[in-house]
Amino acid sequence: MPIIKNKKKKINAAILIIGNEILSGRTQDLNVSFISNWLNVHCGISILEVRIIPDIEKKIIFNIRDLSKKFKYVFTTGGIGPTHDDITALSISKAFNVKYGFNNEAYSLLEKYYGKNNFNEGRKKMAKMPYGSSLIYNPSSAAPGFKIKNVLCLPGVPSILKSMAGSLKKHLTKGRTMIEKSISLYTVESNISLELERIQKKYIKKDVSIGSYPFFRLGKVGVSVVLRSYNNLSLVNCHNDIKNMAVFKKIKIFK
Amino acid sequence: MPIIKNKKKKINAAILIIGNEILSGRTQDLNVSFISNWLNVHCGISILEVRIIPDIEKKIIFNIRDLSKKFKYVFTTGGIGPTHDDITALSISKAFNVKYGFNNEAYSLLEKYYGKNNFNEGRKKMAKMPYGSSLIYNPSSAAPGFKIKNVLCLPGVPSILKSMAGSLKKHLTKGRTMIEKSISLYTVESNISLELERIQKKYIKKDVSIGSYPFFRLGKVGVSVVLRSYNNLSLVNCHNDIKNMAVFKKIKIFK
Repeated sequence: MPIIKNKKKKINAAILIIGNEILSGRTQDLNVSFISNWLNVHCGISILEVRIIPDIEKKIIFNIRDLSKKFKYVFTTGGIGPTHDDITALSISKAFNVKYGFNNEAYSLLEKYYGKNNFNEGRKKMAKMPYGSSLIYNPSSAAPGFKIKNVLCLPGVPSILKSMAGSLKKHLTKGRTMIEKSISLYTVESNISLELERIQKKYIKKDVSIGSYPFFRLGKVGVSVVLRSYNNLSLVNCHNDIKNMAVFKKIKIFK
Repeated sequence: MPIIKNKKKKINAAILIIGNEILSGRTQDLNVSFISNWLNVHCGISILEVRIIPDIEKKIIFNIRDLSKKFKYVFTTGGIGPTHDDITALSISKAFNVKYGFNNEAYSLLEKYYGKNNFNEGRKKMAKMPYGSSLIYNPSSAAPGFKIKNVLCLPGVPSILKSMAGSLKKHLTKGRTMIEKSISLYTVESNISLELERIQKKYIKKDVSIGSYPFFRLGKVGVSVVLRSYNNLSLVNCHNDIKNMAVFKKIKIFK
């Protein structure tokens, strides 16, 4: 899809997935699609880049510096637990040249959750973060995420991450929500490629981007044409143009 | 996990996922885990970075130049179909300053597959690629991927991509396979974090990296401890140390 040009109130962000288990293919990432959808719907923030990197300090430092300069927000997942391979908080402190140590609020919160007698070294580690962080609350397992500058750090476990999404809102400036509409056609891409190109050219100045994705459903092949825009009227008009094109070409529309 | 230091015959690569549908969260990526696993098992190649970017020419050019300098190989997925939003081949031509045009072999192959009368403009577009590319054959839908310099371009549809994996082998130099062993313990991470750190320190010079991942299975919580190494003996020794630690701490092992 081409670039959508309307810059008004448009907020772009990146996701940095920190974790060898995702890179090695052992674990299927599920956080990108959740975060991206959730941010667009609830906060009007669009994810424009994702990186997946290993649990290596210098890689985390490099990517935090790079992405935090390029985007309004950076969301990290993974590496904020109690074990030796959880190095996100320390690495981000180094990236921003701030002290790494106990956050008082996180310390009290975790001490209360586990009880004084069970608040061991591993658990205490989860209260350590970059100096100046504000907390992102965790209703499922207490250990908070944190925000430092424009970087928001979340855990890697999808169920815990999802439960924390609501706590993100107060840390974020809201932007415009990208609206999506799709139409599924029983045809192949090459049969409509010229028409889609023509329609895309017509709507590029009206802020609509058209994506085309083949699908295989119940033994039939088809194409999902996905329209995205910040402008609902343009979206509806473009959707109609594609519908009319399909009718004209006698292509069945999937309902 | 810390860096594995043995550099002998170690081959690192990156994946560049090109596609708005993945970034927006509409489509769940399934290619990273497949490619990463497959490359490690069949070719001894480790994925050390993944980036997901939109279908925007200048972003593709920037990332192809950047990643192709940093890694032995770069694997791209998406954007090589017949529609207007398929701009991977053209963008990579620009990234490497080579001509973009019909590849004779791809042209013949597609013409034969579709038949002369059905070989329309959209289908012809799939024969266009950077000058000097060699083909990656596609047994499911004919349209080939291609290799140019150290960049290998694959389609985005997971079933088609999988069918093409076998055709990758002849384009790649084989490296050492990373071996993995895991042990699942019925405990929480904070209960074993000090022990795991001690064991990691012991094995860091023996090329074993230890990752720790909480799981929730049938209502029980536990930790998967995942060991990765190029050296099988070190891996077995480290696995035994973790087993002994669990027995000593009376932690039940999941079988």
